[in-house]
Amino acid sequence: MSDNATVGPVQTQSLTFAEDEPFCLESGASIGPVTLAYETYGRLNADRSNAILICHALSGSAHAAGYLDGDPDKVGWWEDCIGPGKAFDTDRFFVICSNVIGSCYGSTGPASIDPTTGKAYGLRFPVVTIGDMVKAQIELIDHLGIDKLLCVAGGSMGGMQVLEWAARHPDRVCSAIPIATTAQHSPMLIAFSEVGRQAIYADPAWNHGEYYERLQKPDAGLAVARMVGHITYLSEESMQLKFGRRLQGMEKYGFEFDTEFAVESYLKYNGHKFTQRFDANSYLYITKAMDYFDLSQPTGALAAAFAGSSHLKFLVISFTSDWLYPSYHSKQLVSALTAADTDVTYLDVKSTWGHDAFLLEVETMTNLLGSFLDRLVREERIALPAGSKVRAAKRATAGSPAHHSRLAENLA
Amino acid sequence: MSDNATVGPVQTQSLTFAEDEPFCLESGASIGPVTLAYETYGRLNADRSNAILICHALSGSAHAAGYLDGDPDKVGWWEDCIGPGKAFDTDRFFVICSNVIGSCYGSTGPASIDPTTGKAYGLRFPVVTIGDMVKAQIELIDHLGIDKLLCVAGGSMGGMQVLEWAARHPDRVCSAIPIATTAQHSPMLIAFSEVGRQAIYADPAWNHGEYYERLQKPDAGLAVARMVGHITYLSEESMQLKFGRRLQGMEKYGFEFDTEFAVESYLKYNGHKFTQRFDANSYLYITKAMDYFDLSQPTGALAAAFAGSSHLKFLVISFTSDWLYPSYHSKQLVSALTAADTDVTYLDVKSTWGHDAFLLEVETMTNLLGSFLDRLVREERIALPAGSKVRAAKRATAGSPAHHSRLAENLA
Repeated sequence: MSDNATVGPVQTQSLTFAEDEPFCLESGASIGPVTLAYETYGRLNADRSNAILICHALSGSAHAAGYLDGDPDKVGWWEDCIGPGKAFDTDRFFVICSNVIGSCYGSTGPASIDPTTGKAYGLRFPVVTIGDMVKAQIELIDHLGIDKLLCVAGGSMGGMQVLEWAARHPDRVCSAIPIATTAQHSPMLIAFSEVGRQAIYADPAWNHGEYYERLQKPDAGLAVARMVGHITYLSEESMQLKFGRRLQGMEKYGFEFDTEFAVESYLKYNGHKFTQRFDANSYLYITKAMDYFDLSQPTGALAAAFAGSSHLKFLVISFTSDWLYPSYHSKQLVSALTAADTDVTYLDVKSTWGHDAFLLEVETMTNLLGSFLDRLVREERIALPAGSKVRAAKRATAGSPAHHSRLAENLA
Repeated sequence: MSDNATVGPVQTQSLTFAEDEPFCLESGASIGPVTLAYETYGRLNADRSNAILICHALSGSAHAAGYLDGDPDKVGWWEDCIGPGKAFDTDRFFVICSNVIGSCYGSTGPASIDPTTGKAYGLRFPVVTIGDMVKAQIELIDHLGIDKLLCVAGGSMGGMQVLEWAARHPDRVCSAIPIATTAQHSPMLIAFSEVGRQAIYADPAWNHGEYYERLQKPDAGLAVARMVGHITYLSEESMQLKFGRRLQGMEKYGFEFDTEFAVESYLKYNGHKFTQRFDANSYLYITKAMDYFDLSQPTGALAAAFAGSSHLKFLVISFTSDWLYPSYHSKQLVSALTAADTDVTYLDVKSTWGHDAFLLEVETMTNLLGSFLDRLVREERIALPAGSKVRAAKRATAGSPAHHSRLAENLA
């Protein structure tokens, strides 16, 4: 990737709020202080109208683009789509990404110190919802002096946050791009969440969430949870293409229980790697937030959730081989958005990559996102940041398949 | 279910062989003695031509029909399809079902005593294959004095055994009914197997397979493995129908990590129940046998596997919502069988029940299996057992949806 296609070195920043008044949660509980880790790329224009919020998925972080200062290998999770001339063009837009509350990448979560005890919260951390994550993001947007976001975009759990913004805070956002997501977590999604949680509970090292002061962490359980997740991010077809029945480093069956198939090796490697970067309790809290997500409530009608959003523009994207967030969820969403009289563009992208497609189908995504944002810029008359010169769009980007694959493995 | 629709009380029998000469396995290892648990229903006719072998799935047993002597609740796993006047009509056929080698329902497996040590085999038990399971079944068929089976039938892993019989022992069988299965375990199937195994390995109580003499067994790990399995046996649609987002015994979210959704409760209950009836090491061995299954080898061409099977009749059945063993696997099988010049009937049954459909779509299955077997009886001129009187077929059977559901939960 050439230098000018990246935002370059970035630093993760943080905002702490609710130091005096606690932050009230959907459950009725409250918590404070709350810290959010965030990064920004590009510059705000004069009327602060060019801000785009990117929302991350289950295991993502605020580090969406560029590379962490001093470590060129720590590339952002959506580097393919955020940068100068890319889909989220940092020459034109001020792009923000923050780590969700409950996570473990700098935002307050179960691994954070509870000021009332001086020890990590563990399971004393209150259960948070997608709504709470978004409410915390509003604190950040306020802090940055942004009245209205030009766009909120994200895939998977990121897409749920996008929909929450659009449904519950329509006055703070012009447009929304929910990708490979749902307005209502399905029983199959809940089932996979619960299996992951049960794998963590089953690990004696989890110790009811009290492991932060111990040497042994529930890595074994967390690795199993992640392995289940990895299967669901792929499709049957992409697994056939990627692994088939290939053996790993052997010519024939070993007739033993060592790792033999390439797909086993992939799962084990990624399950193990995940334990080095993620907190098991955060996995519990974030999956729970996803399970609770259901915009059709309390009325039972999804369209009612978007009753106040008719001035918004939506770009809804799903992928044909995504069986975790199947296209029909997006189609139901589009029906509801249409019934609510919003401006909706919908694309069911033909892809073999399953749920991971939202990170892998870079060229298609770049074209889709790019044209939608071009239209927004025209229709909302968005000015460039002072002194900015938009270069020729590099819409057909960047990155080898191996690079894409690595991104998806790390950051879905 | 009325009395005359069941074979009534049955006793599981057992055959022990390889007491002098060890039983040679595909891996090159050998083992002996070997015991197979089996049951039979109905009677052999004079020329021993009316025998049907039923092959069970991953966690099944020899107890396929009737109820265990003294316990009317211990109903066979395919009671809906085996009995007087049912699809596998015990007034006409001599039906056999045996527990596979490697399992834990009376056949020799890792929990059996190794005669060389006087202790349970544990991981010293050799890795077995679908081919080894079928070779052991041949010992049983020989013992019962049956030269040629009229039919071999089974779903899921049972279907793999069916295909193994048809491909590698075509002289011992007239017809084959592989249901909801594949001739080549896919990388996605291997991935789900491996996650289940990793959940067991991750349980410290597993102790590298050495737990038989301990108080604590790897129940937690085995339960997680089973929960993953249960998700894959259902479809997204059947989960929506069966559970939706219904809460279990509560009106609103509890904002805690207790079981809240009905689907969570279902998984936990079934995961736990499974640990009371199944051995964790058997789970490892049987999933490994499935992963190794690939009839396309060694030539790479599936049709070549059936080169000697052109005289066989096949009834291949798949289900539209089965994403674990998707219909296209059955279609590839049908292409290969057609290329090998066999007599094939294929049906892709429209069903919302996912992989479990082979146990739940009783009426459709009864009609399909019944007509195929009727045709076999006519074409192969199969005589009734002495004194037998075939009653009017009860093709549209028996059992409430709740009953079906219970069967599937217990016995898939």
